[in-house]
Formats: sequence, C-alpha cells, structure tokens
Amino acid sequence: MNKGQLLYEGKAKRLYATEDDNILFVEYKDSATAFNGEKKEEIVGKGILNNRITTVIFEKLQEKGIASHFVKSLSANEQLVRKVDIIPIEVVVRNIAAGSLAKRLGLEEGTSLARPIVEFYYKDDALGDPLITTEHIDVLGIATAQQVQALYESSLRVNEVLRPIFEEVGVILVDFKLEYGVDGEGEVLLADEISPDTCRLWDAETKRKLDKDVFRRDLGSLTEVYEIILTKLGGKSS
Amino acid sequence: MNKGQLLYEGKAKRLYATEDDNILFVEYKDSATAFNGEKKEEIVGKGILNNRITTVIFEKLQEKGIASHFVKSLSANEQLVRKVDIIPIEVVVRNIAAGSLAKRLGLEEGTSLARPIVEFYYKDDALGDPLITTEHIDVLGIATAQQVQALYESSLRVNEVLRPIFEEVGVILVDFKLEYGVDGEGEVLLADEISPDTCRLWDAETKRKLDKDVFRRDLGSLTEVYEIILTKLGGKSS
Repeated sequence: MNKGQLLYEGKAKRLYATEDDNILFVEYKDSATAFNGEKKEEIVGKGILNNRITTVIFEKLQEKGIASHFVKSLSANEQLVRKVDIIPIEVVVRNIAAGSLAKRLGLEEGTSLARPIVEFYYKDDALGDPLITTEHIDVLGIATAQQVQALYESSLRVNEVLRPIFEEVGVILVDFKLEYGVDGEGEVLLADEISPDTCRLWDAETKRKLDKDVFRRDLGSLTEVYEIILTKLGGKSS
Repeated sequence: MNKGQLLYEGKAKRLYATEDDNILFVEYKDSATAFNGEKKEEIVGKGILNNRITTVIFEKLQEKGIASHFVKSLSANEQLVRKVDIIPIEVVVRNIAAGSLAKRLGLEEGTSLARPIVEFYYKDDALGDPLITTEHIDVLGIATAQQVQALYESSLRVNEVLRPIFEEVGVILVDFKLEYGVDGEGEVLLADEISPDTCRLWDAETKRKLDKDVFRRDLGSLTEVYEIILTKLGGKSS
C-alpha cells in the first residue's frame, strides 16, 4: 500500500490516499496542541508513541469485538485505516470528574462519578467544540437518532473494555474522547485515535498524570509519560 | 393573608412567610438584571408589570390544566404562591434559535428549529448556570429521573399552550425559561414566574424584541415593551 495524495492535515495527523479507495494512510505528527490550538509545540517522538499506543488499544478493542477503522500499523508512526466520513461529534466518556466536567458542575477534580457518563461535543473549532445535547444533534442534523444511540452504546462498551485493561496495569481511566465515522456501507465505525492525547490517565497509586494534561499544564516531559503508558500496555517504543 | 418574615431575596423578587406554612407571599421588585447580575438597573414599574403578566399566564395555564405554584394575585406587585423547594434546574424551551443557542450551535438568530427543544441548565450563579445533560443531573443528584421526565414533558406542554396564545396576538414565542419546585406532598409544580424577563418574545411582523433583550442589549424602554405584552395578553397595567 503506497502513500498517495495528502487529503487532510489535522493538528496531530496527516491523512493520505492509497491505491484502495476504502483505505487511508495515516501519519502521526510530532505536534502537541491544546486549548483549541492556542498552545502548540513540536515534540520529537510523540507521533511514534501515539501511533503505537493507538495501535495497541485498537487491537485490544478488536479482540473484544469492537470494530474500528483501524486496519494495521505500517511503521513507527504510520498506520492504515478504513476511510470513513467523520461524524462531527466528539463523544466523551467519564468515570471521574476532571477538566471541563469538574469546572462545569463545580466538582472537585478526582471525584468519582456514581456511574460512567457520556457527553457529546460538537466538533467545530470555530465554536470551541461546545457541549451539545441529543436534541441539539437532532436540530443540527449531524447524526440520526439511530447513529447517536450507536455512539452512546459503543462508547460505554469501549469504557467497559478499556477501564479494566488500564486498571490491571495500575492506571485509572479518568475520561476519554472518541470519534466515529460512517464507512461506504453506512456502518458507524470507531475512528480517530485512542491515546494519552485523547484519554485522561492517572497512576492509580500516585495519581500522577500520564496524559496530555502534562503538556496542557506544563507538568514535565510528555514523551516520558506516554512511554510509561505504552510500556504498561505491553507495547514497544522502539 | 399577611406578609410575614422575609425568607429570601432574589434578583427580581422577595419571598415572605405567611401565617400558612404552605403559602408564600411574593413581592416583585423593580430591578432588572442580566449577564448573571453583571448588568443591573432599577426600573420603576417593572415589578408591577411582571406580577401582572405572570398572573395572566399562570391563570391561562391553569385553565389548560397545567398546575403551578400560583395561588392568586394580591396587589399590583404581590401574589400568593404555594411553598415549594425549588429544583436547581432551569428548563429552557426553544422554538427559534436565539441567544446562547444561536451562539453555541453557530446558527443565525431567528432560525426556526425543526422542532421545539428542551434544555436543562444548572441553577448555580457561581458556575454561571451552565448547560447540563440528564446524566449530569443524575451525577449531581439534584433531581430524580422521574422528576426530569416530568420537567421535560410539562415544559413541552407549556410551550404547546403558550405558543398559540402569543401567536393569536401577533407575538412569536421564541424561547422561555421555567423553574419547578417540589411541594410538601412531593408533587413537582411549575414555579417562579413567566414574563418577558424569562421569555423571548418577538413581534411577529416587525420582529421587534418585546422582552428583556431590550434591557440586555440597550434597545429602548423595557416598561414600554412589557406594557405591550401585558396589553396584548388582555391584562391591565393600572
């Protein structure tokens, strides 16, 4: 499979065409961004770490029957994925209050939630990715009620699978963001990436942050903590 | 019924005890506030207008079988209501995009929504009354699932009753905010007020704003437009 034309460049990835119309070539970049792109930095090695961590996680999810766009890893920072039209909704699953939830509800960061909750955000940089309800989704016409139900159920299922995987290696899955797309047959598939860029992960004992909050809040070396996550998940960084 | 001890003073109303434990005395104030209290003004006559408009609307709702805390109007700016514990949720029903919805979803103000939508906001000044989902309500423990369902259904029913009432007098009910409380028997009752302070009302022909946006956006005399609404609803201002 060869890297064709550059189709899209996002904050963390470049997407290229391949000779197969249904398959895209993903290249993970070494950029870290936060606060809707206001904070930006080049971090050597980040692309490799995110590609490797995402690969491990998508493989573990596929073993548990959760389909995704992931096809296979190609090189240190490249993978093949099925081509999908991304649904412009970021699905956030939360087990513990942190970040915007703690702020929104006035909860102390670290408060355990009585149950996992699912939130939808409108994927729109210009609007700042606002929280939206299922009725907003309906009014915007960005997903059908059936798709919203699929997103909701699949995301809770991902949480059920990932939470114990992290727990076993001493990491708390605080919250995470998922994106979905629709493939050529109209099937809704888990897409994008699942990595410390898109998850909040805390060391279960020390509560040390092992995710992008290290970058957001200037808490030290991002690659050092991403390496810890990759190693704990049984992946190799080089 | 006599005005007893002052129990609570809010931005727009004072609540007093009466000799009946289940009944409160409400006094509408002449204050206008907006933007979470950042903008404030004394407007002579506003209390009388809000009391009269709320009275007309609660009476019309009661005629249609929608119970509320409203008991009766006592004087120009005073009324009796049933005592309830206010549920800290503001329920907003919207027929047309305006205000925070237009901003959140990037819709032009005035865009008709395909269907009325219901939103919940956490009534908490310190947090800026944030939008919340039913799952946030569950996590906060501020209302039961049954109560949320009651709020949702009752609010849509209020919209079904009020929208044609305004339409008949040439006014568009763009959106409105409702509050609910629980009485001594555990019954959920519509509470607070329904007035141009809590509704967006536009002249159907000219689209002139006949509500608190006149104050929020410095568009002229607030009492002049509140008088128009009261008169159109068949009420007398003096």
